Amino acid sequence: MIKRVHHVGIAVNNLQESVALFERLLGLKAHIEEAPCQRVTEAIFKVGEGVEIDLLEPMGPDSAVAKFLEKRGEGLHHIALEVDDIDADLEAMEGKGVQLIDKQGREGVAGKIAFLHPKSVNGVLVELVQPEKEGE
Amino acid sequence: MIKRVHHVGIAVNNLQESVALFERLLGLKAHIEEAPCQRVTEAIFKVGEGVEIDLLEPMGPDSAVAKFLEKRGEGLHHIALEVDDIDADLEAMEGKGVQLIDKQGREGVAGKIAFLHPKSVNGVLVELVQPEKEGE
Repeated sequence: MIKRVHHVGIAVNNLQESVALFERLLGLKAHIEEAPCQRVTEAIFKVGEGVEIDLLEPMGPDSAVAKFLEKRGEGLHHIALEVDDIDADLEAMEGKGVQLIDKQGREGVAGKIAFLHPKSVNGVLVELVQPEKEGE
Repeated sequence: MIKRVHHVGIAVNNLQESVALFERLLGLKAHIEEAPCQRVTEAIFKVGEGVEIDLLEPMGPDSAVAKFLEKRGEGLHHIALEVDDIDADLEAMEGKGVQLIDKQGREGVAGKIAFLHPKSVNGVLVELVQPEKEGE
């Protein structure tokens, strides 16, 4: 079940410059994290009620975010929705005709993650996130 | 001051089809609203804690969303941030070097709204929203 919007991901060319801009814009400090599985470095801003704005800089040309930047330039990259049981939710969505990039949750920065294919969601790259429980 | 993420806007070609898809995906019902000032029809989904996902269908070829669809196709269109004093926030942002599309808040569906120029925010179209107070 979809619980809330977890974060919005923004693809950027230069994380350091973009962090400085968003810190000025949002009046918040970023938390920087490496996400080698997705080949990106992330700057995470927790805005109000915990919804995050995540800036994503590719670690190298093999990153999916590098390909996005090459094709479309900087901008909104994906929206992440928090779920409580990612594998069950993926199965239910596939049953409703949604095309999946990941058939099962895999390890990500925020917990277990999986992507839905933009082709079946109006061109929007949707990430599902099942956050780690405290103490895990 | 930025209080929270208010909504994420998604440009779509066919609102009826996209509403059906997102209702299945999110397990929620949409609220449909006309926004003649922005020349769009909106389908609003309140996801968890009140953050909205808004689907936007242009009312005609003169709509900015129609131009977006023509150029980039369906997908993530803008992110809206809630503020408490839109005119003061716009002035402060301009002072920090952010290029504004709207120098002052104007009437929108959710209250007073204004857009920042994507050129100065890493290619992201950012909307500021100052919601109407209850009873206004």
